[in-house]
Amino acid sequence: MRRTLYRILETSAGNRRGVSLVFNIVLITIITLNAIAIILHTVPAINEKYARLFIDFELFSVLFFTVEYVLRVWVCVENDRYHHWFWGRIQYMLSVSALIDLLAIAPFYVTLFATDLAIVRILRLFRIFRLFRVSKYSHAYRMILSVVRDKKEELLLSLAMIVFMLIILSSIMYYVEHPAQPTVFSSIPATMWWAINAMATVGYGDIHPVTALGKTLASVSAVMGIALFALPTSILVSGFNEHIRYRKMPPRCPHCGKEL
Amino acid sequence: MRRTLYRILETSAGNRRGVSLVFNIVLITIITLNAIAIILHTVPAINEKYARLFIDFELFSVLFFTVEYVLRVWVCVENDRYHHWFWGRIQYMLSVSALIDLLAIAPFYVTLFATDLAIVRILRLFRIFRLFRVSKYSHAYRMILSVVRDKKEELLLSLAMIVFMLIILSSIMYYVEHPAQPTVFSSIPATMWWAINAMATVGYGDIHPVTALGKTLASVSAVMGIALFALPTSILVSGFNEHIRYRKMPPRCPHCGKEL
Amino acid sequence: MRRTLYRILETSAGNRRGVSLVFNIVLITIITLNAIAIILHTVPAINEKYARLFIDFELFSVLFFTVEYVLRVWVCVENDRYHHWFWGRIQYMLSVSALIDLLAIAPFYVTLFATDLAIVRILRLFRIFRLFRVSKYSHAYRMILSVVRDKKEELLLSLAMIVFMLIILSSIMYYVEHPAQPTVFSSIPATMWWAINAMATVGYGDIHPVTALGKTLASVSAVMGIALFALPTSILVSGFNEHIRYRKMPPRCPHCGKEL
Amino acid sequence: MRRTLYRILETSAGNRRGVSLVFNIVLITIITLNAIAIILHTVPAINEKYARLFIDFELFSVLFFTVEYVLRVWVCVENDRYHHWFWGRIQYMLSVSALIDLLAIAPFYVTLFATDLAIVRILRLFRIFRLFRVSKYSHAYRMILSVVRDKKEELLLSLAMIVFMLIILSSIMYYVEHPAQPTVFSSIPATMWWAINAMATVGYGDIHPVTALGKTLASVSAVMGIALFALPTSILVSGFNEHIRYRKMPPRCPHCGKEL
Repeated sequence: MRRTLYRILETSAGNRRGVSLVFNIVLITIITLNAIAIILHTVPAINEKYARLFIDFELFSVLFFTVEYVLRVWVCVENDRYHHWFWGRIQYMLSVSALIDLLAIAPFYVTLFATDLAIVRILRLFRIFRLFRVSKYSHAYRMILSVVRDKKEELLLSLAMIVFMLIILSSIMYYVEHPAQPTVFSSIPATMWWAINAMATVGYGDIHPVTALGKTLASVSAVMGIALFALPTSILVSGFNEHIRYRKMPPRCPHCGKEL
Repeated sequence: MRRTLYRILETSAGNRRGVSLVFNIVLITIITLNAIAIILHTVPAINEKYARLFIDFELFSVLFFTVEYVLRVWVCVENDRYHHWFWGRIQYMLSVSALIDLLAIAPFYVTLFATDLAIVRILRLFRIFRLFRVSKYSHAYRMILSVVRDKKEELLLSLAMIVFMLIILSSIMYYVEHPAQPTVFSSIPATMWWAINAMATVGYGDIHPVTALGKTLASVSAVMGIALFALPTSILVSGFNEHIRYRKMPPRCPHCGKEL
Repeated sequence: MRRTLYRILETSAGNRRGVSLVFNIVLITIITLNAIAIILHTVPAINEKYARLFIDFELFSVLFFTVEYVLRVWVCVENDRYHHWFWGRIQYMLSVSALIDLLAIAPFYVTLFATDLAIVRILRLFRIFRLFRVSKYSHAYRMILSVVRDKKEELLLSLAMIVFMLIILSSIMYYVEHPAQPTVFSSIPATMWWAINAMATVGYGDIHPVTALGKTLASVSAVMGIALFALPTSILVSGFNEHIRYRKMPPRCPHCGKEL
Repeated sequence: MRRTLYRILETSAGNRRGVSLVFNIVLITIITLNAIAIILHTVPAINEKYARLFIDFELFSVLFFTVEYVLRVWVCVENDRYHHWFWGRIQYMLSVSALIDLLAIAPFYVTLFATDLAIVRILRLFRIFRLFRVSKYSHAYRMILSVVRDKKEELLLSLAMIVFMLIILSSIMYYVEHPAQPTVFSSIPATMWWAINAMATVGYGDIHPVTALGKTLASVSAVMGIALFALPTSILVSGFNEHIRYRKMPPRCPHCGKEL
């Protein structure tokens, strides 16, 4: 019976038909409804009207995820990686996947005992982890992970360049604009908020230079930002393109014809 | 006579000379004038001055499009796909192309009987469907459709990633900024408006974080948005490039004549 | 003597040494100083202080450009394309290059007789044409022209798509936002100003939707804008890349080895 | 002993183990702490609380960098390029690398004697040069330099095009918007601030056209800006891609061993 349950719960066990498929559809539906509930719950008008429904659905979700979590821990020993009856289960519970599952339900139980409202509010935020659960079922998530892992070195390099320019531009801008706008460009960290938005060309308009020198520097920042942000973008784009191309047709060696 | 009329009305019937060409030029001119009329009609100064002209042109357009629609239904049986005298015509009337033609004229007739002003205003909006009619004659529209169909899977995947990040970022941002700006970041749906504009680097300035944590999160959102939006962009770009390349003849060497 | 002068004035006559080089450096310097004068002339503080200098430099520039224009018309008959002593000169004066030269000086003479201040102000704007003269000497200008000519068809297609979406989005947005903000989204042309800035992700913040439906539509517009604007960008980028690549190493046929 | 010290201080001397590695880690740590100190020093709340710590750390940093600078000048003669005991040291002190090292410490000594507060404030800005020192140790910095040097010609060309369009658009916009908004579009330099932000799609919202003609011109500017800024971006992207590809080993087929 434990083996049957394992095959139903584990999508990676190669069994995607019958009961397993039904279970997965039910699970993704509940996760999607949770996402909608988390979003609509914050709209006062809707929250007041359907308060009862939100609480009931929350209770049902936590119950469902708790039962699922307990069952997963029970059946995990069917997997060869976690075959020891005790250490295998501990090892499974410490895997990233199982920790995300736990973080999606744990806050509910903690809030039952928590009396401090500030802590309760922060714990509620952890319900968003339920959304990450759907990632296990999505190609997109695994694709992102794989592309980011492939291009790790280049991405870190370009991120370092952006951070370096961010510090240089913010420091110079602070000394240029602080005397003219002491409350807006109040410190270098405050100026960094301007710098990242200038480089990413967001431009909310809450903070911008007013002196001639500051405006010249801001113009240079925008041009540099466009050039610098093109780097991680192009790295990710080429990474995704390679991924899509290889998934469709594995490349072959032009000399011997074998797949690479 | 029905066959002659069919050849005139249907551009895809391979006949693009003589009367058929003249008819198409007249049709596209009327559709373009309709677009200009719809746009200028909303400018109060122009609407007051040329009110009579707008009403007359509207009547003429509806009459023209109605006659054209009736004729198209009458002659459609010349097409092998709709050859049955009754079911063929019903089938034609349910095609996307014919439904767009109907939606472009139907609102006028409904407003004759509608007494509720709110409904009349909504129905007027449907006149924009007349513009979609020009798409039948444009390469651009068919090219977009074909590229989007080719890259459907990748586009949906990247859209899913954007929506996923949108929900995650909005949820975290709501819990971070709501205590500081309860009227601006009033709910997660309100925060999603911020999130999409931050990720697309629009930055209208009507909603932006003020806390240090919120600003840090907004900076991360801008960087992630640039990277994520690069994905559908690059997919569409590569799709359009493939399309343009394939539409042109395969290039040949001018010296030896072999394909390159 | 006319032949010598022709060789000095015409850079395309293959003579880029000695007097011709000196003349070209003097000409480009005067054009650059004109650009700086046009820009600084509008700063009240600088204009008051150096009013005399600006007027003198303007007089000198017009005199210099007039003498140069007259000489160019006199010597143009040395060029085989304009060899007839009368019709050749007329033909030269009607060439794009000579018309730009004329537009750079004509406004000065017209303003001597013009009494209407509004016309004088508009004519002053034409002095910017002096900048376009430098384009004759720049690789960049010729490269842009050549790339735009190569990719004309694709650029017009993508521009048509942007205009089409602009009209559709503006029309829908007007009907959605007009009831909520009748003075801001006052007409479809006013809404088009919003639409172009939303699609290009500029977001000045002077006009933005406030209703839930309007915000949803604006989000869709931003995503569509990013995708649509990627098209002309990628066309230009590939055009420039091809241009740079071909200038460096002409491609060869892989079968016969000859240049294409 | 001078030779040993030279091997420790110079990373390019091929010795990256033992004492040399420890020294480099210490140096980069002190530079990073300096960056954090420069940033946090400007936050009034933190500056008041840890004023003593900031002053002490500044003294320690200057002392450390001074000792390091003196030692580098002493040992530089071990390098074949600077082997003369006097002229070699002068030559080393005039190298870009040594000048950056000097600029990172000199301001401190100058401020000891400076009495004018304005000069002291400007000199403090020069402490940011300490950050540039880390660039000597970073691949990113050398990669940027190398890519920019490779693509110098194309980058200057595209920059010239942007500046040219900037002047043309600003001049026209000034004549269009100045009569409507004389205080906002007060001069062409003021309009250039708008133009660069419109072309880079930043859009802070502090300056934007209000007339119909001005809005049309702004729309054209945004479209042109997207196309023009795509040029340096694509040049840098292709440059970085070439660099990354060449730095990695040429790929080989794992089956037959030949280069692909």
